[in-house]
Amino acid sequence: MRIVFPLFDGFTALDAVGPYEVLRNLPDADIVFAAPAAGPVTDGAGRLVLTADAVFDDIAAADVLVVPGGPGARANTGNARLLDWIRSVHATTAWTTSVCTGSLLLGAAGLLAGLRATTHWSAAGLLESYGAVHTEQRVVEQGRIITAAGVSSGIDMALRLAELIAGPVAAQAIQLAIEYDPQPPFDAGSWNKAPQAAKDYLAAR
Amino acid sequence: MRIVFPLFDGFTALDAVGPYEVLRNLPDADIVFAAPAAGPVTDGAGRLVLTADAVFDDIAAADVLVVPGGPGARANTGNARLLDWIRSVHATTAWTTSVCTGSLLLGAAGLLAGLRATTHWSAAGLLESYGAVHTEQRVVEQGRIITAAGVSSGIDMALRLAELIAGPVAAQAIQLAIEYDPQPPFDAGSWNKAPQAAKDYLAAR
Repeated sequence: MRIVFPLFDGFTALDAVGPYEVLRNLPDADIVFAAPAAGPVTDGAGRLVLTADAVFDDIAAADVLVVPGGPGARANTGNARLLDWIRSVHATTAWTTSVCTGSLLLGAAGLLAGLRATTHWSAAGLLESYGAVHTEQRVVEQGRIITAAGVSSGIDMALRLAELIAGPVAAQAIQLAIEYDPQPPFDAGSWNKAPQAAKDYLAAR
Repeated sequence: MRIVFPLFDGFTALDAVGPYEVLRNLPDADIVFAAPAAGPVTDGAGRLVLTADAVFDDIAAADVLVVPGGPGARANTGNARLLDWIRSVHATTAWTTSVCTGSLLLGAAGLLAGLRATTHWSAAGLLESYGAVHTEQRVVEQGRIITAAGVSSGIDMALRLAELIAGPVAAQAIQLAIEYDPQPPFDAGSWNKAPQAAKDYLAAR
């Protein structure tokens, strides 16, 4: 099963690596990191470099597409070549998914018109500008398109996807393998739960 | 603040990238990925390649050390050069931390003797062979040494570390920025919670 992660400069590393760590554990997973050119791709913080092992032009089909977000996703919503590629690969997939602002690329490619979808909390309005119906859920399933909320939500999305692909026992086994028994020290991980002081802190940066 | 992630072939990607995505958001974070040689480092699944931008020999000190686990951690518990480096950098840190079987490297370096510590559930016995007292907690703090359980626990550990370094408001702001409001589709993320069928599935692979 070919699972393709498109990368672009400015992607958010955890958007890709969270789902990667889940999906690579699927039986027969064939993981591909694709980019405009093979070689190094730098994340949005400018500090982490992943290697792409394939070029978009060489990937005509995928079973699963996982589109990460990040500043680079926003920056590429007008990149016709990338959007064409997403559209054409989407035509071949069993599952097309996004994490964080990766859904903006699905939206810009025209895949979310009239569909419920999610994204990072900061991009809800932008998502709706592509005709999607922003939905306050961590993982939103619409047929074979699954969108996830910000950054870390890709892990939850990928576990659900693992269940859809390989069944609940396989998904639970992967959850155990990566010891995903989350215990965040605060309950501040969504816009509705975070204290005002944390929002002010973010706004000031 | 210099935050150093030692990498080695066979590391688990999420062990490093989870904490990275948290800690890079700290004010004045200076992230360094260090390895035996600068350049590509391949993860334990053989599919993900991160770039190291520094060589161990060039890193004599760090404010924070985050040691990931993975098959490569187990494989390096006899690597005297790496263990010497960990020991000497630890002498300079404010915080020395590990994720998953990264704690085996701290143990092999002699840093955990007599201390409570944790690791991936599959490595509890091995951890104790280094004189540590294995503790069933997701994050274990012992003075300036913090160990985390398997793979995904590094996110929880890093948020606690962010609180210790920059205070609760900064940590909550980071949690909101990465939208860490976990909602796993199953409650199977620890050995005590996972159903037997999931354990059997893992054992059979």
